[in-house]
Amino acid sequence: MSRLFAEYEIESPVGLERAAQVIAGEQSCGTFMRLTGETDDLRSRAGAKVERVIEESVRDRPSLPCRKQGASYARGRILLSWPLANMGPSLTNTLATVAGNLFELAEISALRLLDVTFPGEFARACPGPAFGIKGTQELAGVEGRPMIGTIVKPSVGLSAEETAALVRELCEGGIDFIKDDELQANGPHCPLAERVPAVMAVINDHAARMGRKVMYAFNITDEVDEMKRNADMVLAAGGTCLMVSLHSVGLAGLGAIRRHAELPLHCHRNGWGLFQRSPDIGISYRAWQKFWRLAGADHLHVNGLANKFSETDASVIDSARAVSAPLFCEGLPGFEAMPVFSSGQTAVQVELTYKALGTTDFIYCAGGGIMGHPEGVSGGVESLRQAAEAAVAGIPLHDHARDHPALAAALSAFGDRLP
Amino acid sequence: MSRLFAEYEIESPVGLERAAQVIAGEQSCGTFMRLTGETDDLRSRAGAKVERVIEESVRDRPSLPCRKQGASYARGRILLSWPLANMGPSLTNTLATVAGNLFELAEISALRLLDVTFPGEFARACPGPAFGIKGTQELAGVEGRPMIGTIVKPSVGLSAEETAALVRELCEGGIDFIKDDELQANGPHCPLAERVPAVMAVINDHAARMGRKVMYAFNITDEVDEMKRNADMVLAAGGTCLMVSLHSVGLAGLGAIRRHAELPLHCHRNGWGLFQRSPDIGISYRAWQKFWRLAGADHLHVNGLANKFSETDASVIDSARAVSAPLFCEGLPGFEAMPVFSSGQTAVQVELTYKALGTTDFIYCAGGGIMGHPEGVSGGVESLRQAAEAAVAGIPLHDHARDHPALAAALSAFGDRLP
Repeated sequence: MSRLFAEYEIESPVGLERAAQVIAGEQSCGTFMRLTGETDDLRSRAGAKVERVIEESVRDRPSLPCRKQGASYARGRILLSWPLANMGPSLTNTLATVAGNLFELAEISALRLLDVTFPGEFARACPGPAFGIKGTQELAGVEGRPMIGTIVKPSVGLSAEETAALVRELCEGGIDFIKDDELQANGPHCPLAERVPAVMAVINDHAARMGRKVMYAFNITDEVDEMKRNADMVLAAGGTCLMVSLHSVGLAGLGAIRRHAELPLHCHRNGWGLFQRSPDIGISYRAWQKFWRLAGADHLHVNGLANKFSETDASVIDSARAVSAPLFCEGLPGFEAMPVFSSGQTAVQVELTYKALGTTDFIYCAGGGIMGHPEGVSGGVESLRQAAEAAVAGIPLHDHARDHPALAAALSAFGDRLP
Repeated sequence: MSRLFAEYEIESPVGLERAAQVIAGEQSCGTFMRLTGETDDLRSRAGAKVERVIEESVRDRPSLPCRKQGASYARGRILLSWPLANMGPSLTNTLATVAGNLFELAEISALRLLDVTFPGEFARACPGPAFGIKGTQELAGVEGRPMIGTIVKPSVGLSAEETAALVRELCEGGIDFIKDDELQANGPHCPLAERVPAVMAVINDHAARMGRKVMYAFNITDEVDEMKRNADMVLAAGGTCLMVSLHSVGLAGLGAIRRHAELPLHCHRNGWGLFQRSPDIGISYRAWQKFWRLAGADHLHVNGLANKFSETDASVIDSARAVSAPLFCEGLPGFEAMPVFSSGQTAVQVELTYKALGTTDFIYCAGGGIMGHPEGVSGGVESLRQAAEAAVAGIPLHDHARDHPALAAALSAFGDRLP
């Protein structure tokens, strides 16, 4: 019988071994007292097991407010496992098992879910990304270099016509990928029914002339039936990408659109800071992204180097590597997704991003870094393409800038964004 | 033009006024730099406004790791507002606006979303609970007293037949409401296709004899299409309630099942501790539950007094009051939902719960408090009904216990659970 594994960092006033047993009990067949129905046979069949407990430190006070008090608070890592028979290869019910009623336990003064190992049954039961890295690159006609992308800015407030005019400039500048901001979905000031035809008229026209279609991720985030209708509208207009806000639609919402849509799903993680920001409560990106890839995410946001948020560069690169690492061992689909860099990105950070990843399999999105470029939108796009060229060819950025004015202008405008 | 309001507790190294402006900018038409497209006209049309800033304290170090450092860290409450034109009356896109890319801002060393005020347009656009408090009580045939409920225990591991046998005992004991544990959905050891007919045969038979049907909340949490099939199966078998794990299905997932199903939705908040546990990051229950009620939640879990978790009793009661308070002002639907008490509950806490709420409009679920009762399941159910009788009649619990042996046994077994 296959088992599902989850690793946590925890802190507890009752000792890690005891705390691990409490979590294992609460998240399988136990409750706050032993019941007669909880027979030894049922327990050995359905109980979660504590596989490993490693104490790493001891503190003299709890990191989070805690009902139970202790003389000291041990902190470390625990590994638990569950029989797959409990929940089956169901993403939604696995989430309720590994990240359900445990963050609030009185025996716990800190808890972070670090990783989840899904048994192979999930590879067969879950759809995974329909396009992934290769499918996205083929659809966008990009090979051997990162996809240069941008976010429509201002994030919200432009009309459909204003958006289309900006898209025209971006296409002419040589962009590969454009996305709506997560704040711009189907609001009354710029409804999809106007934005999709206006934007796609520009993109289709440009594609007819250039032989390559710019990928535009329309933010279809909404109720399930509305998302399906929105997806159909984008497909019918010749669009090639759909965007959803993951925390807004949920795992079941993403699964529903994955099963309906015939385009790559560009997945935004807005709200992610709630899971990541505290060292004492949350879910690691490594664990979190696995759920969404299994559900069908083709592209996943990973923040960017020297970003405008509080995340460290090391964490950003770890996330990008996690997203494109195979999810199962050999012989099963890898469900690799495309990492998307975004947030305060400019030409300045392209080389470092490429070097840290060691591959061109990523989407690099700059909003202000393109629209705030001293030479305007086309200079902004050009500066990013030049930065990517230099990175792939191994030419130092400042050398390449000598005979590439758009890059030179970006370096002087955004040079202070270097990490 | 209607506006949407959100209140936050924040802490910042750059001053609260400045931090509030950064959040307002990031969550509407701004980015890390002022762009030419962000005209004054667009800004006045689409920009979020800082309505109020109240500084409450100053600390000398950041509560959460923070990229930006300051000489001090101001803490307090801010109120922001957005034009409804930005997102329209869309729950999913409102969530991306008020709880999106802001928890991770470098200008913020703590942030909790405290409340959201939805304009009346949401009352018309969102389905809200189909049954709510009154509809649930009518369907369950319960009036003038709390609904006495339980959770099938052991949580997971029983077969369909074992579950049905336990349900028979519970029905005979006089229970009003039974729910699956959130760990028990459609796993291979106890699939719904076996559990629903086995359980409903018992409940329908009991209803035919007693004239009142026990409400059983089957945990249908799954992908959207599977949930719909599960809901149809429950309805066809004569079932009267459906349970979903909210964080697993997401807002769009709940919305999809609300629009399809014809039964009350019993909504479990497992995973909630991640939002609540830290004083420095998260979402208040008051804000969180509004989204789910608008999406269609009929019953919402609020934990219980003297629970097995870390939440305080004051917070539990505040949550229960929030769930049943009208969501809109007079003339619009109130979208009141039924609070569900659960977690370490026994006969001992019934009176305090009733007194704190001042109403019988709640579901009171005890798992161990029923199945761990010294006289077994029927004694457990009886003890809860006797405790509720005493509470409603204003008879002190220990007086009532004198000639009510089941209650007396509960008091001696669980007396230490009194807050």
